[in-house]
Amino acid sequence: MTATAPIAAVTAPIIALDVMGGDAGLADVMAAAEIASERYPRLTFRLHGPESRIKAELAKNPRLAGTATIVHTDEVVLGTDKPSQALRRGRTSSMGMAIDSVKQGEAHAAVSAGNTGALMAMALFALRTMPGIDRPALAALLPTLKNDSVVLDLGANTECDAENLVQFAVMGAAFARTVLGLERPRVALLNIGEEELKGTDEIRDAAALLRGAVLPMTFEGYVEGDKIGQGNVDVIVTDGFSGNIALKTAEGTGKLVTGLLAKAFESSWLTKLGYLLSRGALRALRAHLDPNAHNGAVFLGLNGLVVKSHGSANILGIANAIGVAHDLIVGNVGDRILQDLANFQAHRPEPVVTDVETGA
Amino acid sequence: MTATAPIAAVTAPIIALDVMGGDAGLADVMAAAEIASERYPRLTFRLHGPESRIKAELAKNPRLAGTATIVHTDEVVLGTDKPSQALRRGRTSSMGMAIDSVKQGEAHAAVSAGNTGALMAMALFALRTMPGIDRPALAALLPTLKNDSVVLDLGANTECDAENLVQFAVMGAAFARTVLGLERPRVALLNIGEEELKGTDEIRDAAALLRGAVLPMTFEGYVEGDKIGQGNVDVIVTDGFSGNIALKTAEGTGKLVTGLLAKAFESSWLTKLGYLLSRGALRALRAHLDPNAHNGAVFLGLNGLVVKSHGSANILGIANAIGVAHDLIVGNVGDRILQDLANFQAHRPEPVVTDVETGA
Repeated sequence: MTATAPIAAVTAPIIALDVMGGDAGLADVMAAAEIASERYPRLTFRLHGPESRIKAELAKNPRLAGTATIVHTDEVVLGTDKPSQALRRGRTSSMGMAIDSVKQGEAHAAVSAGNTGALMAMALFALRTMPGIDRPALAALLPTLKNDSVVLDLGANTECDAENLVQFAVMGAAFARTVLGLERPRVALLNIGEEELKGTDEIRDAAALLRGAVLPMTFEGYVEGDKIGQGNVDVIVTDGFSGNIALKTAEGTGKLVTGLLAKAFESSWLTKLGYLLSRGALRALRAHLDPNAHNGAVFLGLNGLVVKSHGSANILGIANAIGVAHDLIVGNVGDRILQDLANFQAHRPEPVVTDVETGA
Repeated sequence: MTATAPIAAVTAPIIALDVMGGDAGLADVMAAAEIASERYPRLTFRLHGPESRIKAELAKNPRLAGTATIVHTDEVVLGTDKPSQALRRGRTSSMGMAIDSVKQGEAHAAVSAGNTGALMAMALFALRTMPGIDRPALAALLPTLKNDSVVLDLGANTECDAENLVQFAVMGAAFARTVLGLERPRVALLNIGEEELKGTDEIRDAAALLRGAVLPMTFEGYVEGDKIGQGNVDVIVTDGFSGNIALKTAEGTGKLVTGLLAKAFESSWLTKLGYLLSRGALRALRAHLDPNAHNGAVFLGLNGLVVKSHGSANILGIANAIGVAHDLIVGNVGDRILQDLANFQAHRPEPVVTDVETGA
């Protein structure tokens, strides 16, 4: 509880920023922080990385310069480092020190665009899971025909039991209330059918628990993969394997369709002219689907917040990931999760049958 | 082996067609069979359904009339019937009798647009799995930027062990050789990363077995969800849960993007004009992604072929599903699978470690 306690009192959020991660490089990461400083005047930064290079960039980013503390390190976690290597040697890297800032209560969230596996391993090791959470989950926003939906887990846990899924539902709903501003988010479990008997034991048991739960959400049962893009539920809960498959399949299909579309417009002078006339609207379409607009995967369930910016995100994308961290801090997502978990346990429906059977 | 034996000698393929399944209705199913009769002059049909209605439609479909045998029944499996109900009462339905025609060696494949759960249950019960196959799998073609890819399992088995996945790989490769005409299809396991250590024990063990296997395929390791649409592998192997999630997410994302595109074109008179000019090319795009063009999910691994046409497929879609059945019969997919399994077992790499550990 100690690491979450300072979050409860926050009026001026502090973000520990790893300036070294991702493809964009230090200058772009700091330009993103400058944009975030403009968007959120109360936000301050701890910048983790090489002091001289940070200082040189601060000269170009005046707002950031006014609110930032530099925490020097020359060490970095490489994209090729294994999680185990990062755990052994990474503590004094820019990524490791950003996480440590959260652990020490000097920042409310760490943001990094670096190596995902290393970030998750170091964050879990340093911050530990919240009381009542067995496993953390990776959550992110996905575009739909309507508003964005929260999807979790996106790959932190390949296999999950019913209790894990229920905890993910609680965390995802807290995310949706905090970042999407919803009072009672609609929550569903990803499944291969909508009937009660579909899916695995874990999913059916999680559904039974969520159906009777006292939580600030509306449980909508099951949602199938083809409904993810419809936007009829706000939070989609799944194990990390299926979540990762769904997220990446959606990305890939989006690229496939837009790729075919580009080909279609290239097919004749008539279609090229058609493209020119429609260009503005097509740009808006691309913007709607742009991963940069939905950047910022949150590692939820730890005693402190950690946000992963996509390695290939651009400046605006990184600024959006910082924005997600900002909203989660200000909205006090950690305390919300703790409160909801306590409420859930106090009004827990009935013992889960498969727990008895499998001894899990 | 008895039920597969007649397939080996086929020069004139026979399809048992359930004329009663799906949203399209008897007249459309028979119009589809007429198209297939034109495409494949050697193909003959056994038509399962109400004789008087079939006869009335045969008058409008002269080619089909010349090659069809009517097997009368007034009974149907409803879309709302549970698999257990279909097993109890469905044997004398048009779907059950189509499967029985395959079992009796009177047809090489059954094609139905009816209730998927009922069809799979009745087919498994009547035809049983091939020797060497522990579980059948549902396979279908998916559009990509290049050629179509075969994906399996799409939902027959929610959980699979390494042996199941290897058997799916063998069946999927035989499908690709038969229907896509590839000599050595590139086969990959769907996973959440491309590194050797990613994923579940089942996937890693399956990869170890496939890496050393003597099979008419090239094993490409792992493929992630975002690469499905690229078309760089020909066969994508996964458990039925993830396969169903991936397939439906791809469908849903396709609809999301084309839905947003329609909105984009509606946004001003300029974009509307742009749409008019690009219409032809956009139609080609829609045709490329049209589920009807990829209709026909095959239930592989039984002693006889069963092809499921999508419930909402149109006449051309149903004709395509019949075409898939035709190609699989003529290409002798059953014997190919048996031969490949025998070869695989004869040159089996090394015992699977998890089998020992889990006792599975």
